[in-house]
Amino acid sequence: MSDHSFSAVSAVQALKWSDGGLEVLDQRLLPGDVVYQIFDTAAGVAEAIASMRVRGAPAIGIAAAYGVVLGARAAYARDPAHWKRAVEDDIAVLARSRPTAVNLFWALERMREAMAAIEGDPVPALLAAARRIHEDDLAANLAMGELGAAILGGCKGVLTHCNTGALATGGYGTALGVIRSTWRRGALERVYATETRPWSQGARLTVWELGQDRIPATLLADSAAAWLMKSGAVQWVVVGADRIAANGDVANKIGTYSLAVLARHHGVKLMVVAPISTVDWATATGEDIVVEERDPRELLHPLFLGSDSVIGAWNPVFDVTPAALIDAIVTEAGVVTNPSPDTMATLRGKAR
Amino acid sequence: MSDHSFSAVSAVQALKWSDGGLEVLDQRLLPGDVVYQIFDTAAGVAEAIASMRVRGAPAIGIAAAYGVVLGARAAYARDPAHWKRAVEDDIAVLARSRPTAVNLFWALERMREAMAAIEGDPVPALLAAARRIHEDDLAANLAMGELGAAILGGCKGVLTHCNTGALATGGYGTALGVIRSTWRRGALERVYATETRPWSQGARLTVWELGQDRIPATLLADSAAAWLMKSGAVQWVVVGADRIAANGDVANKIGTYSLAVLARHHGVKLMVVAPISTVDWATATGEDIVVEERDPRELLHPLFLGSDSVIGAWNPVFDVTPAALIDAIVTEAGVVTNPSPDTMATLRGKAR
Repeated sequence: MSDHSFSAVSAVQALKWSDGGLEVLDQRLLPGDVVYQIFDTAAGVAEAIASMRVRGAPAIGIAAAYGVVLGARAAYARDPAHWKRAVEDDIAVLARSRPTAVNLFWALERMREAMAAIEGDPVPALLAAARRIHEDDLAANLAMGELGAAILGGCKGVLTHCNTGALATGGYGTALGVIRSTWRRGALERVYATETRPWSQGARLTVWELGQDRIPATLLADSAAAWLMKSGAVQWVVVGADRIAANGDVANKIGTYSLAVLARHHGVKLMVVAPISTVDWATATGEDIVVEERDPRELLHPLFLGSDSVIGAWNPVFDVTPAALIDAIVTEAGVVTNPSPDTMATLRGKAR
Repeated sequence: MSDHSFSAVSAVQALKWSDGGLEVLDQRLLPGDVVYQIFDTAAGVAEAIASMRVRGAPAIGIAAAYGVVLGARAAYARDPAHWKRAVEDDIAVLARSRPTAVNLFWALERMREAMAAIEGDPVPALLAAARRIHEDDLAANLAMGELGAAILGGCKGVLTHCNTGALATGGYGTALGVIRSTWRRGALERVYATETRPWSQGARLTVWELGQDRIPATLLADSAAAWLMKSGAVQWVVVGADRIAANGDVANKIGTYSLAVLARHHGVKLMVVAPISTVDWATATGEDIVVEERDPRELLHPLFLGSDSVIGAWNPVFDVTPAALIDAIVTEAGVVTNPSPDTMATLRGKAR
């Protein structure tokens, strides 16, 4: 699939491959500035992930795959006989960039598998593998969009959290892809987007993407979601996932668990949309998921950072929503309603 | 009570009267800059309230009372025979500054009552009335602090929302006053404070006040409160109120309703702390309370403000928490547990 095809499904691309390296849209500067930076080393791509220039579980996996290509290119140029050993170091660096998104480890494992059979210049085969991961993600998004839209049906108002659109994926989006597909079917009237502190992915990225597609959207403070639900304006909450446990528990952006509890209280339904690669079958339940905590400085005024300060911050990036609060998990391999160990096992069978 | 007495109970004062007028701490600049501005007209005080230089329901009422003094001083100087008519205009302007805080209307009504008997120069009597409102509020806070602390007992972790401290009141605070008093009793280990978007009163004001009192506090994103509750770190949520209906429904900072639903789900208790003047006996239930909505620009990037934009924002400043989700309402006149029309009527009897 060409870059032209990626741009056909969404007005914006988070990642573009060029001969110079991986072009990364710096999402920290959106929506004010649209700036691409080129990264031509694996370590550079790892830094782009850790610094959140690129974010969103699927996009992180895709970026890491291209990072492996860059690592292999440099290692092969240095030492054609032992490049694989050097690339293993690059893979380790990329794996440490963000701890929670399972797609990252999945993408790196696919790249490692592709490496095994390579003799000679690894770049053509690895680039093909990375492009395949990228294209497969886009195709999965489009498939999930249709599956999710069929469930949302005549839903008039939907609430989403964080950014799960083209910026977070290979293009189109997971939860935002379902919202795009639902919008095209005509019944949806308005999308509500939480601000999503502390990085404000909703305020900076989601409403920007929706605006580019001319989909009417209303931004609200995270704390206003309960009051919105009480007003009756939304029938579904639709979110993505960073990791799904084998029993259907979902780790996703901090605040997802809050929305899940509030949705259940108000009779609003909750849909989780994520590629099947997000499911970590080796993790039995959400209790086994380690949640990343980021720097307190993302929340705290510098005034409170002195060594004698009694003021701190708690900055978990994700929370875990128990399967019992989720009405539907949508993957490209199929939909699980009322997720449980049994219904998830059925999904696993389909995905094989 | 002298200004010295105010400073004895809290390290900071939102409002100070001087011969030049009302000195208002510009809370929009905290915690980075501590700047007082002097307002010497009633319209200036109204603007200081509308622009949120001063905020917090009790502090708004106190500021408005001093605003009436300033209006009367100017009107009497202009026309000693007809100053009362001019001050009625000032009262109307002050009443329009913020629509939800009932203390504002209560304070203005007390000032109007004080005006009735005045002959000659109104300033001494009105200044005495305004100071009385200020001092009574501080005394009420200290009384509520003791009543609330007795209920919190051995509570180790408490979560609060917005800012309800010395900055929001005549000094000491309502919910934060209860937290201060509980801290002094020794069992409380840590205060958790929500950021409180979009004005970030928690991040800018509450942790700043707590830091000045050397009370250990942890800031968190609003959306992380559910995950905090699930961790077991807090046993109580303690908040203030902008208006309490006769049945015990509470209008307070947006996000309070969310915390109430989440607290009930997690077995965490909810305490509302507010002076009895916050109770609007003429409002039967929360459904009759009109909630202020502020400018969408408080949430939206300027990029989205164009006339052809499909992106908007919903910015309610308050929400209404039904009495059924509240475990205790603490006023200086007494405590109502499990508020209902009947138990609230008992409080009304005590307050007379």
